[in-house]
Amino acid sequence: MYNLLKGKKGIIFGALNEHSIAWKVAERAHEEGATFVLTNAPIALRMGQLNALAEKTGSQVIGADATSIDDLTNLVEKSMEILGGKIDFVLHSIGMSVNVRKGKHYTDPKYDFTTKGWDISAVSFHKVMNVLYNKNAMSEWGSIVALTYMAAQRVFPDYNDMADNKAYLESIARSFGYFFGRDYKVRVNTISQSPTPTTAGSGVKGFDGFIEYAEKMSPLGNATALECADYTISLFSDLTKKVTLQNLFHDGGFSNMGVSDPIMDKFVGEED
Amino acid sequence: MYNLLKGKKGIIFGALNEHSIAWKVAERAHEEGATFVLTNAPIALRMGQLNALAEKTGSQVIGADATSIDDLTNLVEKSMEILGGKIDFVLHSIGMSVNVRKGKHYTDPKYDFTTKGWDISAVSFHKVMNVLYNKNAMSEWGSIVALTYMAAQRVFPDYNDMADNKAYLESIARSFGYFFGRDYKVRVNTISQSPTPTTAGSGVKGFDGFIEYAEKMSPLGNATALECADYTISLFSDLTKKVTLQNLFHDGGFSNMGVSDPIMDKFVGEED
Amino acid sequence: MYNLLKGKKGIIFGALNEHSIAWKVAERAHEEGATFVLTNAPIALRMGQLNALAEKTGSQVIGADATSIDDLTNLVEKSMEILGGKIDFVLHSIGMSVNVRKGKHYTDPKYDFTTKGWDISAVSFHKVMNVLYNKNAMSEWGSIVALTYMAAQRVFPDYNDMADNKAYLESIARSFGYFFGRDYKVRVNTISQSPTPTTAGSGVKGFDGFIEYAEKMSPLGNATALECADYTISLFSDLTKKVTLQNLFHDGGFSNMGVSDPIMDKFVGEED
Amino acid sequence: MYNLLKGKKGIIFGALNEHSIAWKVAERAHEEGATFVLTNAPIALRMGQLNALAEKTGSQVIGADATSIDDLTNLVEKSMEILGGKIDFVLHSIGMSVNVRKGKHYTDPKYDFTTKGWDISAVSFHKVMNVLYNKNAMSEWGSIVALTYMAAQRVFPDYNDMADNKAYLESIARSFGYFFGRDYKVRVNTISQSPTPTTAGSGVKGFDGFIEYAEKMSPLGNATALECADYTISLFSDLTKKVTLQNLFHDGGFSNMGVSDPIMDKFVGEED
Repeated sequence: MYNLLKGKKGIIFGALNEHSIAWKVAERAHEEGATFVLTNAPIALRMGQLNALAEKTGSQVIGADATSIDDLTNLVEKSMEILGGKIDFVLHSIGMSVNVRKGKHYTDPKYDFTTKGWDISAVSFHKVMNVLYNKNAMSEWGSIVALTYMAAQRVFPDYNDMADNKAYLESIARSFGYFFGRDYKVRVNTISQSPTPTTAGSGVKGFDGFIEYAEKMSPLGNATALECADYTISLFSDLTKKVTLQNLFHDGGFSNMGVSDPIMDKFVGEED
Repeated sequence: MYNLLKGKKGIIFGALNEHSIAWKVAERAHEEGATFVLTNAPIALRMGQLNALAEKTGSQVIGADATSIDDLTNLVEKSMEILGGKIDFVLHSIGMSVNVRKGKHYTDPKYDFTTKGWDISAVSFHKVMNVLYNKNAMSEWGSIVALTYMAAQRVFPDYNDMADNKAYLESIARSFGYFFGRDYKVRVNTISQSPTPTTAGSGVKGFDGFIEYAEKMSPLGNATALECADYTISLFSDLTKKVTLQNLFHDGGFSNMGVSDPIMDKFVGEED
Repeated sequence: MYNLLKGKKGIIFGALNEHSIAWKVAERAHEEGATFVLTNAPIALRMGQLNALAEKTGSQVIGADATSIDDLTNLVEKSMEILGGKIDFVLHSIGMSVNVRKGKHYTDPKYDFTTKGWDISAVSFHKVMNVLYNKNAMSEWGSIVALTYMAAQRVFPDYNDMADNKAYLESIARSFGYFFGRDYKVRVNTISQSPTPTTAGSGVKGFDGFIEYAEKMSPLGNATALECADYTISLFSDLTKKVTLQNLFHDGGFSNMGVSDPIMDKFVGEED
Repeated sequence: MYNLLKGKKGIIFGALNEHSIAWKVAERAHEEGATFVLTNAPIALRMGQLNALAEKTGSQVIGADATSIDDLTNLVEKSMEILGGKIDFVLHSIGMSVNVRKGKHYTDPKYDFTTKGWDISAVSFHKVMNVLYNKNAMSEWGSIVALTYMAAQRVFPDYNDMADNKAYLESIARSFGYFFGRDYKVRVNTISQSPTPTTAGSGVKGFDGFIEYAEKMSPLGNATALECADYTISLFSDLTKKVTLQNLFHDGGFSNMGVSDPIMDKFVGEED
């Protein structure tokens, strides 16, 4: 629409199906003139419809287990070959709690599940940047974005160990962002998005009620996946070159609400 | 009970009646061995029962308009005379929105009211510290505390311009706290307290429903005025000498909650 | 460059000369296809070169004292006439501490100066939104941005009472932003910008040393006025519709640094 | 000194030698009338002088690998036997980065080391609370405290993956603190302490220069290990019953400083 990413090259992790935020980012990045490689875990490639997205956006798909340095090395090398040079933008949209999947409560997890979820959801972001940094694969003034959720700062009881994983992920953004900024002029940020009815989000217990709660708490309502894609595009563009190490709330205002009128209405009854 | 403030001298602003947090602080400070001067605005002295508190705690009362440097100068000078030396602790518990009292909505205030409420609720804290600092009236390792509310960080729609006043107050704590720490080893902090059914708190529209909401959101429930007094004592004591420039939430955990189970129950109905 | 603001109408407060951030925002907004009205205080109109900017960008200039509801009412009414409809974006870039100008130290201000600086630097933002809100002058999904500085959160000793003013300003953004979002789908945010060598910034004592310090602390270096303008454009555009109530750091990463290697080098000498 | 912990029973993790914060906490808790069990990893028991502390404070020592649920179960069961009932307070002072020890840079770690350091430094806190919670071993209004560092929020380049571990630890405090508060009225907080020249702290590169930097930045100077112990006692006491889910900075004001005069002096030279 605006040519904001004209000539820019990227790697997009985590598109599964048309509900995925990463899917919307890919569509919007394509509209804005970017070329990119799509990637996901081998199992997600089988389950999802990534080839349809690749076709639509003229992209290639490279499978990669984001917890494997070898897979990520192959991905980055191949992407640079395919795209013809260094990478301008990267989206990390990966997260999964094995404890949630297996129905383990936060207070009594299986710690092997905890470790695996942490590796997939958080350490994978470190590994992606490790490969990009050590291969000097990012363009100057490139932009790396990971998606996160406010459970990293505040308690959402059903979010389980994903809260802790997101806190770790956001810390990686700052820690690695420092070295990426200092050495390569690359910015690293996280977007803390409204609860979004993606395939991943839907796994959380009581998710519909929670979506309604967040909608009523947010003065602008929940942010959609497409709106998140728009915001991500702005962070990949040259308009935001000096924004780095930030966790950016994209949530219709939820994060700075104490209480809203529609929420209070549930407590004051008719009197007010 | 513990002699935590044995031999310490203080000034306590803002006790009106037995519901006041400042009233509870005075009672607890007395139990902990402190001597102090009680002060409030002339009109509050007439309305309240401060003499009863003074008698109970062996204190003297000095009236002072906390927006008047002259009154504050007189207060500090007299207090040092009465108490026999420099001041070890000060509590600022003052706040009033004229716009709230007069029923003006946040989006359409009378700006004279805005200015007056700001002067009383926020600038008064600067003026108190101005006099204490420039008269070199605080003991080394003394402690200054002001009471505040989380509306300084997050939106509570009915809190009106008190939200902005509290943000200004908390900023004063940091700004003046720097100079007080650097020059006199005095610490300055704010306590961000649960909504508390004091005379001041009750002025806010829909306050009862809000108290219930906060109670249900907080894993430990709302903090009472007496609990706030206990916490304040800990900040006046020698146990917290290196805590400064902080805004400290005393709220049963409310401030770091995204949503609690009892709140979610209002949204998920029977299904969950 | 991108047509990001094609067809959008705005009001830009605070351009004084080509060093001003507001000046750069006007130039960039013009490039992006917007039409707008430029405004500043009568005295600033005399001192500055606003007419040159107006000519360059095809804009009209309307003088307004931003502390006067009457002036602001006139400004908003005339702007809607000139631009032919409701307003899509507003930039508030106004700030001045009389205490700083008159050389008063933070610990011993003249309180009349404090009040005047607060009115100009902070309350003016409330008054601007008051008029826009009550005249229903903003388009749905419009965007209001005010410039601020990190002294609102952390101590910069020479920033004086502007720290407290900026804290109040940021609180207004949240407080008014709630009502603007709920009632008109308008977003309100503040940008917390690197120290910038504008005419206003230069008034602060030791400013050059401070610029160097911030440059060395920030992994991407300080953000320039032009970069700030680019970022502001992104917040006016349709890419950020669900970002509201936020204080957004645009500072090369400074805000999330504890210490950088170049700063540490001043402390560890040759040993490291 | 005050009998603040008279009759209270505790478990203290992480005392190694007299420089340890946990060592000071044990000494102070003993002075305040508490009885407790001391624990550390088997290897630390061999290296340290924990028996001397045990003798001095009339405590027993129980070795436990804090990453082992079995060891922790044994510890908690034995402690309740020895102390004669439920636990009132717990200190978690455990942290170690294998990558730091082995000289691996943050941008190129060995991920096995990353996992091990995370397990020891962060997950151990979850495991401790898991055992206490599921055995219903904490008294009502009990208090659990873990030590952390501000690298969880801001970048300190040499702190390596301990930054991310501390972010995860602080998230656990919130996540588990919710359930502990809701179900058992137990509070959970972290203390974010000044850099402290303990055996653990000294492992970080350029630590002396960093201590000096922090000292110069903090209006009250760095907080010592003994002062941290005092503060911890206040959090174990009944004065702070409604403080929970908080990360509490105990750092002489460092955390809210943007820059101090002594730091600026390094940048402005003679001119100012």
